[in-house]
Amino acid sequence: MSLLVVGSLAFDDLETPFGSSKNTLGGSATYIALAASFFIDEIHMVGVVGEDFGEDNLNLFRERNIDLGGVKVVPNGKTFRWAGRYHYDMNTRDTIETQLNVLADFDAVIPHQYQQAKYVCLGNIDPVLQKKVLSQVSRPKLVVCDTMNFWIEGKPKELQETLQLVDVFIINDSEARLLAKEPNLIKCARLIREMGPKTLIIKKGEHGALLFTDNGVFSAPAYPLEFIYDPTGAGDTFAGGFTGYLAKVGEINEMTLRKAVLYGSTMASFCVERFGAERLFELSPLEITDRYQSFLELSRIEE
Amino acid sequence: MSLLVVGSLAFDDLETPFGSSKNTLGGSATYIALAASFFIDEIHMVGVVGEDFGEDNLNLFRERNIDLGGVKVVPNGKTFRWAGRYHYDMNTRDTIETQLNVLADFDAVIPHQYQQAKYVCLGNIDPVLQKKVLSQVSRPKLVVCDTMNFWIEGKPKELQETLQLVDVFIINDSEARLLAKEPNLIKCARLIREMGPKTLIIKKGEHGALLFTDNGVFSAPAYPLEFIYDPTGAGDTFAGGFTGYLAKVGEINEMTLRKAVLYGSTMASFCVERFGAERLFELSPLEITDRYQSFLELSRIEE
Repeated sequence: MSLLVVGSLAFDDLETPFGSSKNTLGGSATYIALAASFFIDEIHMVGVVGEDFGEDNLNLFRERNIDLGGVKVVPNGKTFRWAGRYHYDMNTRDTIETQLNVLADFDAVIPHQYQQAKYVCLGNIDPVLQKKVLSQVSRPKLVVCDTMNFWIEGKPKELQETLQLVDVFIINDSEARLLAKEPNLIKCARLIREMGPKTLIIKKGEHGALLFTDNGVFSAPAYPLEFIYDPTGAGDTFAGGFTGYLAKVGEINEMTLRKAVLYGSTMASFCVERFGAERLFELSPLEITDRYQSFLELSRIEE
Repeated sequence: MSLLVVGSLAFDDLETPFGSSKNTLGGSATYIALAASFFIDEIHMVGVVGEDFGEDNLNLFRERNIDLGGVKVVPNGKTFRWAGRYHYDMNTRDTIETQLNVLADFDAVIPHQYQQAKYVCLGNIDPVLQKKVLSQVSRPKLVVCDTMNFWIEGKPKELQETLQLVDVFIINDSEARLLAKEPNLIKCARLIREMGPKTLIIKKGEHGALLFTDNGVFSAPAYPLEFIYDPTGAGDTFAGGFTGYLAKVGEINEMTLRKAVLYGSTMASFCVERFGAERLFELSPLEITDRYQSFLELSRIEE
């Protein structure tokens, strides 16, 4: 099955209590596509970079079979940059600098040959652009969408319009509380599902993730990591693993959604072990299988 | 199997965003014994109350087959009182008043006939008293112990001595971080298990609970409640359900410990549905079985 990934490509400057990393390859589309590439072969990426992005970085995607036909390279343009610093507890971060650069003029035009994609994963970008993407694709089987507090606060009306077109909405717990204006996550989930997405995933970092569907709630554990080197991209990586797994199995039901949440969690648990997306370039399919088994073991009860 | 429960009996004044309740029956021993009484018949309670506690309240325990031979009624004494107010998010609370009253002179003497108890559950009291209890019992099969931030900060040395005698230690996430002086819960667990208890349970409220043993980690989900009326006693109720289930099955291994965590979570999920211990007096065995099944369903994956 083909997957269309739309989102940002970036250079990140990252600071965590364990070290720092400059000019690190990042952006939502980067993490989503890399994570999904462990599950499926046909991934089409749509995004924009500056000339400074370089062939070396583009080749990193090509080596993982990710098609870049929809990635526009702006001559003399500068790639989107983000600089952030994580606090000691790794749960909060400060944005030090955001340079939109070429992302400011990103128009999210989907090349004709990708408009038939069966699976669409919308990384965290302006909800207006997310909606524009969905207006160009013809009846995908599944639309997965991420966002962030910046858009929840800055473009609430536009986000609501996008949400009506989305099948699976993925956000974290603080974003869910912000969007639903409600502290109880279970009540949040009901309110957000009423906004459109039939399936909602609330990520809770070290506390795992919750999946809400018409069939009820699934509670996914978090992988018990003693060290989290860098949480950057963990949410996007989750979305990529989740969508990639579903595109691979080609069937969407309660049990494939539950497993997709565990595969998303599996991929995210690797992502945080190194800076940026480094770990995703050193990952083997066997490691994924092993860690997925560990996830099953974490909540296993034998009757 | 016989269970010895040692802890406080109290009158609580409770305020939550949903209402308030005065002179509510409370205390750690109260919740532990009530929860355990749904699993086993032979429960011996040790504690102290004032004459104001009244026969009506004592009868509430007797009706649930809880033996009060170890509960001292101090003539003219006043029962321990606690008043607390929960914040809007229900995760934080302020203590408005603590009146130790007869609890100030509680000496934790275990009557001779209870010293052979095979299961011991130590509610949240002074760790010096907890240790004194353990010096009086002869080789129990399992010692379960709870504590709180007040003792972690106020009697750290005494708590460490008690922990060396404990099999299962149950605390919440903020207490674990306070005790281990470490933000990462997985690292906390390693450090706390090095203090003595081979088995550690970290309760995380709306995020479920983690069980740490020599075999690894078990992640228990939380029951998805839209309303939590009153969290008072949820932790004690967890401990009572946990220990009661283990005393019932009479065997301690990885799988019975995991199931005990789910039964503890099940009992706690009922407790928070009403003020104080009210819900535990209206609970049927069938409701417990049904909710336990819901807990299994929350993390079920079919291969």
